[in-house]
Amino acid sequence: MRILVANVNTTQSMTDSIAAQARRVAASGTEIIGLTPRFGAVSCEGNFESYLAAIGVMDRVLSYEGPYDAVIQAGYGEHGREGLQELLDVPVVDITEAAASTAMFLGHKYSVVTTLDRTVPLIEDRLKLAGLDVRCASVRASGLSVLELEVDPDRAIEAIVEQALLAVSEDKAEVIVLGCGGMAGLDEQIRRRADVPVVDGVAAAVTIAESLVRMGLSTSKVRTYAHPRSKSVTGWPLAGVDVPAVPL
Amino acid sequence: MRILVANVNTTQSMTDSIAAQARRVAASGTEIIGLTPRFGAVSCEGNFESYLAAIGVMDRVLSYEGPYDAVIQAGYGEHGREGLQELLDVPVVDITEAAASTAMFLGHKYSVVTTLDRTVPLIEDRLKLAGLDVRCASVRASGLSVLELEVDPDRAIEAIVEQALLAVSEDKAEVIVLGCGGMAGLDEQIRRRADVPVVDGVAAAVTIAESLVRMGLSTSKVRTYAHPRSKSVTGWPLAGVDVPAVPL
Amino acid sequence: MRILVANVNTTQSMTDSIAAQARRVAASGTEIIGLTPRFGAVSCEGNFESYLAAIGVMDRVLSYEGPYDAVIQAGYGEHGREGLQELLDVPVVDITEAAASTAMFLGHKYSVVTTLDRTVPLIEDRLKLAGLDVRCASVRASGLSVLELEVDPDRAIEAIVEQALLAVSEDKAEVIVLGCGGMAGLDEQIRRRADVPVVDGVAAAVTIAESLVRMGLSTSKVRTYAHPRSKSVTGWPLAGVDVPAVPL
Amino acid sequence: MRILVANVNTTQSMTDSIAAQARRVAASGTEIIGLTPRFGAVSCEGNFESYLAAIGVMDRVLSYEGPYDAVIQAGYGEHGREGLQELLDVPVVDITEAAASTAMFLGHKYSVVTTLDRTVPLIEDRLKLAGLDVRCASVRASGLSVLELEVDPDRAIEAIVEQALLAVSEDKAEVIVLGCGGMAGLDEQIRRRADVPVVDGVAAAVTIAESLVRMGLSTSKVRTYAHPRSKSVTGWPLAGVDVPAVPL
Amino acid sequence: MRILVANVNTTQSMTDSIAAQARRVAASGTEIIGLTPRFGAVSCEGNFESYLAAIGVMDRVLSYEGPYDAVIQAGYGEHGREGLQELLDVPVVDITEAAASTAMFLGHKYSVVTTLDRTVPLIEDRLKLAGLDVRCASVRASGLSVLELEVDPDRAIEAIVEQALLAVSEDKAEVIVLGCGGMAGLDEQIRRRADVPVVDGVAAAVTIAESLVRMGLSTSKVRTYAHPRSKSVTGWPLAGVDVPAVPL
Amino acid sequence: MRILVANVNTTQSMTDSIAAQARRVAASGTEIIGLTPRFGAVSCEGNFESYLAAIGVMDRVLSYEGPYDAVIQAGYGEHGREGLQELLDVPVVDITEAAASTAMFLGHKYSVVTTLDRTVPLIEDRLKLAGLDVRCASVRASGLSVLELEVDPDRAIEAIVEQALLAVSEDKAEVIVLGCGGMAGLDEQIRRRADVPVVDGVAAAVTIAESLVRMGLSTSKVRTYAHPRSKSVTGWPLAGVDVPAVPL
Repeated sequence: MRILVANVNTTQSMTDSIAAQARRVAASGTEIIGLTPRFGAVSCEGNFESYLAAIGVMDRVLSYEGPYDAVIQAGYGEHGREGLQELLDVPVVDITEAAASTAMFLGHKYSVVTTLDRTVPLIEDRLKLAGLDVRCASVRASGLSVLELEVDPDRAIEAIVEQALLAVSEDKAEVIVLGCGGMAGLDEQIRRRADVPVVDGVAAAVTIAESLVRMGLSTSKVRTYAHPRSKSVTGWPLAGVDVPAVPL
Repeated sequence: MRILVANVNTTQSMTDSIAAQARRVAASGTEIIGLTPRFGAVSCEGNFESYLAAIGVMDRVLSYEGPYDAVIQAGYGEHGREGLQELLDVPVVDITEAAASTAMFLGHKYSVVTTLDRTVPLIEDRLKLAGLDVRCASVRASGLSVLELEVDPDRAIEAIVEQALLAVSEDKAEVIVLGCGGMAGLDEQIRRRADVPVVDGVAAAVTIAESLVRMGLSTSKVRTYAHPRSKSVTGWPLAGVDVPAVPL
Repeated sequence: MRILVANVNTTQSMTDSIAAQARRVAASGTEIIGLTPRFGAVSCEGNFESYLAAIGVMDRVLSYEGPYDAVIQAGYGEHGREGLQELLDVPVVDITEAAASTAMFLGHKYSVVTTLDRTVPLIEDRLKLAGLDVRCASVRASGLSVLELEVDPDRAIEAIVEQALLAVSEDKAEVIVLGCGGMAGLDEQIRRRADVPVVDGVAAAVTIAESLVRMGLSTSKVRTYAHPRSKSVTGWPLAGVDVPAVPL
Repeated sequence: MRILVANVNTTQSMTDSIAAQARRVAASGTEIIGLTPRFGAVSCEGNFESYLAAIGVMDRVLSYEGPYDAVIQAGYGEHGREGLQELLDVPVVDITEAAASTAMFLGHKYSVVTTLDRTVPLIEDRLKLAGLDVRCASVRASGLSVLELEVDPDRAIEAIVEQALLAVSEDKAEVIVLGCGGMAGLDEQIRRRADVPVVDGVAAAVTIAESLVRMGLSTSKVRTYAHPRSKSVTGWPLAGVDVPAVPL
Repeated sequence: MRILVANVNTTQSMTDSIAAQARRVAASGTEIIGLTPRFGAVSCEGNFESYLAAIGVMDRVLSYEGPYDAVIQAGYGEHGREGLQELLDVPVVDITEAAASTAMFLGHKYSVVTTLDRTVPLIEDRLKLAGLDVRCASVRASGLSVLELEVDPDRAIEAIVEQALLAVSEDKAEVIVLGCGGMAGLDEQIRRRADVPVVDGVAAAVTIAESLVRMGLSTSKVRTYAHPRSKSVTGWPLAGVDVPAVPL
Repeated sequence: MRILVANVNTTQSMTDSIAAQARRVAASGTEIIGLTPRFGAVSCEGNFESYLAAIGVMDRVLSYEGPYDAVIQAGYGEHGREGLQELLDVPVVDITEAAASTAMFLGHKYSVVTTLDRTVPLIEDRLKLAGLDVRCASVRASGLSVLELEVDPDRAIEAIVEQALLAVSEDKAEVIVLGCGGMAGLDEQIRRRADVPVVDGVAAAVTIAESLVRMGLSTSKVRTYAHPRSKSVTGWPLAGVDVPAVPL
């Protein structure tokens, strides 16, 4: 089985660490391909960057030339998953939803710890749309930007643990979700420090994508995620890539 | 006052009819500038096209060279408004929200009548995120595509009136919202036929944008819609347009 | 265009300041008529006074003798708007809803800052019924009574700014709504102090009423707000004013 | 124990039948006093009439001269209960809430069958504010006006049973609530015909009022329902009756 | 009238104090029978014990040999009420719901003060399922276990009053519900100390059960709470007690 | 890895078919152990039977003597999962939640097709508590009892497909969930007939349980699902099995 794991920003080192985290949990026999968008921001921390990422990920996935069995969108709280679901026939798993969905099997309420405060409403909106917000106790910001996570992992762990402990004591969370693709790989250390289950979205998404493939399940095409209708699309960034479409 | 009214698709005739509808309701002294994205689909009827439109509208608005006082995103149920709000200092009004917000002053419940069934969930999702869904009785599809509206307005009116009457009798709607930018200008005829208030989003958005400007109000910059942080953005489609940003 | 702006209490000076605020934002060509109920309390700070105001406003509006194009009910969180909608054919705009609706175009969440703590549940209930509570971060009390606002505007501004800043930092509001008709005119100073958009309900209601009239829209008469059925009404306070009614 | 049962309209025969129904269920030792407002409409079928009833009931109750232990507001879906709670020290029970609250002990979902379709939104709003709407399957209209119920009880029973059966089969209600004070006394016959529990709000309210008194419980005065603040009230319809108030 | 009041744990002294509290409020002519399960835990403070109690109560009630008119399940936040409703023809009242339902007649919001923090989610879940959570301001833990309540009532009152006062000042509760059957009888003292209405679930349930019986109302049998279908049940703990059932 | 799959009823043939379905999807290296409760009903179709199953499953799992890595509760819409989570240290997955959670990755809305109409409210309640109801379009009954599914699979498929098609056309479901453990193995045929993704809860639960184990995740023990406190438990059906407990 081959799973494409698409980073949402253009930072290659982040793609690499996401792919490494994916490989850590992948079943033997699962091949993980990390993809970096050809355009977009070096990190996504707001709606402009997130919308750009939505298109950047679709562009990158559509131009991937080999066969694949599932796609993971590895940005926490980002736009675009619905577009990929329309374009593709294979399952699409967003790490925001994968992590929330997994956390709900582990405790009565979960909290997300993310990067900057400004991204909190984006995550809240994504969880609300996904219908996975009912048992979300809170979304908390560590105050670190996406790229700072990479530069200083120790400080990142410190800041995340601090918020995780507050989520447990103040917000009554019983499980912590790491709210950034760039936190991939920190889960073990945070789990040890905070003494509650810590869910990493990339890992969760890999197991869910594998499971859907194993069960022969993929996106329903009857309504919302039917293929786009065949129509003229001007200047779709990626020349030479056809959009899969149904006739009008 | 100058208001940019951005169509979400690349069909110039639709931009023209949207701008004409905007001018019909605009105060004297308000200049309406219709904008057509430089890339995207000829009509938006799904998530892929809608995400593309989000970027297409941001690109087109950012590359508009003169001064302006407000921006209207004239696609019903489309992505992207939050991105524009981040990028700009002037008010941004989405016609989906403008119409719903206006309808709620006119009756206990409202219904939206849109184009194809596949776009219904997109509209429902947009209204949910906007917190304007509580008094929405239903979103109904006329079965006509965006472009068919233009080709045969009489058939369009027939199909919309049919659903409007069902919304009133079955779903207990008291107000009808026209759920497509391409329906601009049909409101009067439908109102006469269905005998309930009919709200056109483009007209509603123009009055709201004018009002915000008159009151000296614009998007809050304290959190969700703060300017993007200054960072490297590769291949943002529109070369030569700087993204307004705050220093890291 | 003539708009009646009905104060909900019997304090004439408050009617005057509300009308002045309405005139400040009104379009040229819009005439503002301030109305003071003939009975009721000198200020509304609870349900008894609010129910009395509901009737007092209906009485006063029905007995206004000239023509008019719209009515604004200028009490924040008060009862009665639905009754006016039944009785009248012109649009009715409540400042509670006008302000909330306007705030939602300006930020992800808004908070209301009102007078006494005891009025908070009334406002929460009104917003809930209007379906405008989903994005309300909080309703906070400044601790000042309605009449104290008039007596000492500087202290009022201080108390409101204090709560506004807490709403932003604690409740994550991005926009502040002034939750009392008696705060009309304080918006500019509070905006400067709190550095977020501040919405005054009277101003917002004037622009919305004007917009509805301009679009030819008024209250739907198909169900909830149909005219009262023709029936015997004993001792309706205002002798000599007929209630508009439909035959049984 | 003496309980005042206030009709919301000015039709004395309806007060009588409500009082009779109250007496049917009252404990021995409970005295039921039926009150008819001194002003208002002969029946309440909309917001104007309902707001008038709110004041009419407060006026009538405040001018009742003897002692009493509890007050029942015997209009289904009407305004005013919160005002009475502020004014009085004894418990106030609204039949809308009493019936819903009782029905919830008897089945998974309940439906209300009321009079005219135009009153349905009022009832829905009252249940929503009371937080008793979650298990309400539907509010259905029999199509009969309040006064028609009195004129032709057989036709009334027929029309109510028809909607009750639809509520059970279509809306999955397991309990039926009679949604009009004027239906008092019809419960037994409808129960026999529809073969599900049928709750009459007047009866339910009497038992709840008695229970509250027996437990020594009454309205909390700490916030929402504190006595009105002492202030000038002009032209409160009932001259000579003091409004209980707390000093400013 | 005879009402069975079933304790959910095996501590006889707690059954006795619950029955005593029930008798304190019961009408003359109502006989209260306290029942103690034949198996289960000495106190219920979690899901395992609560599920065991569900079966323990059904077993005990079914094996009660005389006639009875209603059953009260006297555990706060416990499982099992729905099962009893299926098995019995007489009304079943759970004290969790009885208390919440009663509190809602007394103030805008109520809070529950219970025993250990770990039981808070169980209570929240029960209120949510009952649709009685909308006006619940908070569920707070006193930190005392069920059995500690009995051992040291003074300390219990101290701890409950502390949380009650916080519920009023922080969570804006206007009414306090005692969230444990073992708190029966403490209501008066807490009411005096906290100066808000205090609802005891056992007392509330007794009055509701009596009321339902008096009105001739019982559980609807049309769907959710129809008798179990006649089928083979192996090893149902209580040998010799037939489960009432409908033929397949 | 060894996963215990606990049937909720005492019908051994159903345990066998559930285990077979589990094995069909299990990874190589996963051992599936089917467990049948030692007491309980031959099928669960209501609350009494479901509460009995809750205890029956806990009894059976606790008395399983070997080591195991996860437990699946294989009854759709049944009570008990929270109790197992308290008692065990390994992950517990309920098929109701596993199926809903999986379906949400495949379409905008999903519907459940279950057995008898009387079980619909139980399933709705379970989904509500799990916070997985927001995107549930409907729960529909096929009209067949649990045991009839086994006797006549062809008729079962016919009845399920009929409801699945209605769920798609009427309720706008895009994915179908099989709402009964006894439907295990029918998914493929129904998928072919209804042409939308069909999710079987047993299969979904196996993949989720495996994934949690692989990620080293299990139930949080900080609050709701902490081990029971050490206390006297009388007559816990299974003599000789100790309940894991924390000291008081």
